[in-house]
Amino acid sequence: MNLATIGAVHTGRHDHDSTPVQTALNREEPGEIHLDPVYASALEGLDGFSHLWIVTWLGTPEQDTGPAAPMVQTPFLLRPTGASIGTFAMRGPRRPNPIGLHLVRIRRVSLDPPIVYFLGVDMVDGTPVVDLKPWVSRFDLPVEEDVRSGWFDDLQIEKTTPAELAEQKEETE
Amino acid sequence: MNLATIGAVHTGRHDHDSTPVQTALNREEPGEIHLDPVYASALEGLDGFSHLWIVTWLGTPEQDTGPAAPMVQTPFLLRPTGASIGTFAMRGPRRPNPIGLHLVRIRRVSLDPPIVYFLGVDMVDGTPVVDLKPWVSRFDLPVEEDVRSGWFDDLQIEKTTPAELAEQKEETE
Repeated sequence: MNLATIGAVHTGRHDHDSTPVQTALNREEPGEIHLDPVYASALEGLDGFSHLWIVTWLGTPEQDTGPAAPMVQTPFLLRPTGASIGTFAMRGPRRPNPIGLHLVRIRRVSLDPPIVYFLGVDMVDGTPVVDLKPWVSRFDLPVEEDVRSGWFDDLQIEKTTPAELAEQKEETE
Repeated sequence: MNLATIGAVHTGRHDHDSTPVQTALNREEPGEIHLDPVYASALEGLDGFSHLWIVTWLGTPEQDTGPAAPMVQTPFLLRPTGASIGTFAMRGPRRPNPIGLHLVRIRRVSLDPPIVYFLGVDMVDGTPVVDLKPWVSRFDLPVEEDVRSGWFDDLQIEKTTPAELAEQKEETE
């Protein structure tokens, strides 16, 4: 199963360590998706949506996928405590298939050239894009009342970048 | 960029035409994710979450990705009207990279053998799984008040399978 790159995200971030680890922790920073022009008409109708899922590739192009990834690891947000979590119970980039899922707010959609201007940055400049999907309230929300988000529910999030979270760990020790 | 299959979804659905097009339209039907045993420990901690994103591959293994997909098409849910929408403003399976994103409710997580029992079925039996990500309320929800879901906002959803939606179109004509 081969993925095609359909475009790239452009942001003002150039190294992972100083980039916030989730768009929700950095909702106001602007970024742009530049699509290959062949996909321009696939953006028709997207301007009716306020929010978008960007699906990205968070590895290198030739990366070994599958069991080469760690099965248990310390998420960035748990660096201060050092606790380990199964990879499928966390959202970090080191996964059997390094697929990223980013909820962003749409500012403007241009068809020619095909660019989506958005708010919410947790990706470095040049991150390859493999899919775009509109956020749909009827599909993307649990309707049940007892929603539990595991270890995230107990987490006080103060620091938002890997570098800050590593620093916080050192202070704790 | 090569994807590895990490497991498969097992459901009681065996043809696309009679399978609901979104889990949100079929929230109570049970299904199971059977992971390759090599990924068992990656499920540690997932039982603390009530909801899960299943990331699937909705094409054939050798499918041509990229511009071979339609850029503009009629979504299943708009079959009764025949209206066309850009592929990146819809959620259907025919996309440049046929990646599926399914929000399901976790019933039980087994580590040995590695099986996730869930509710919410919009995939046929045997659909390949490429990633699992926990649904996190702090990350997966817009916080803004003016959330717009484009053409979905005006849609009365009564039929939920491609076959029913095609029938409804014929009745309209």
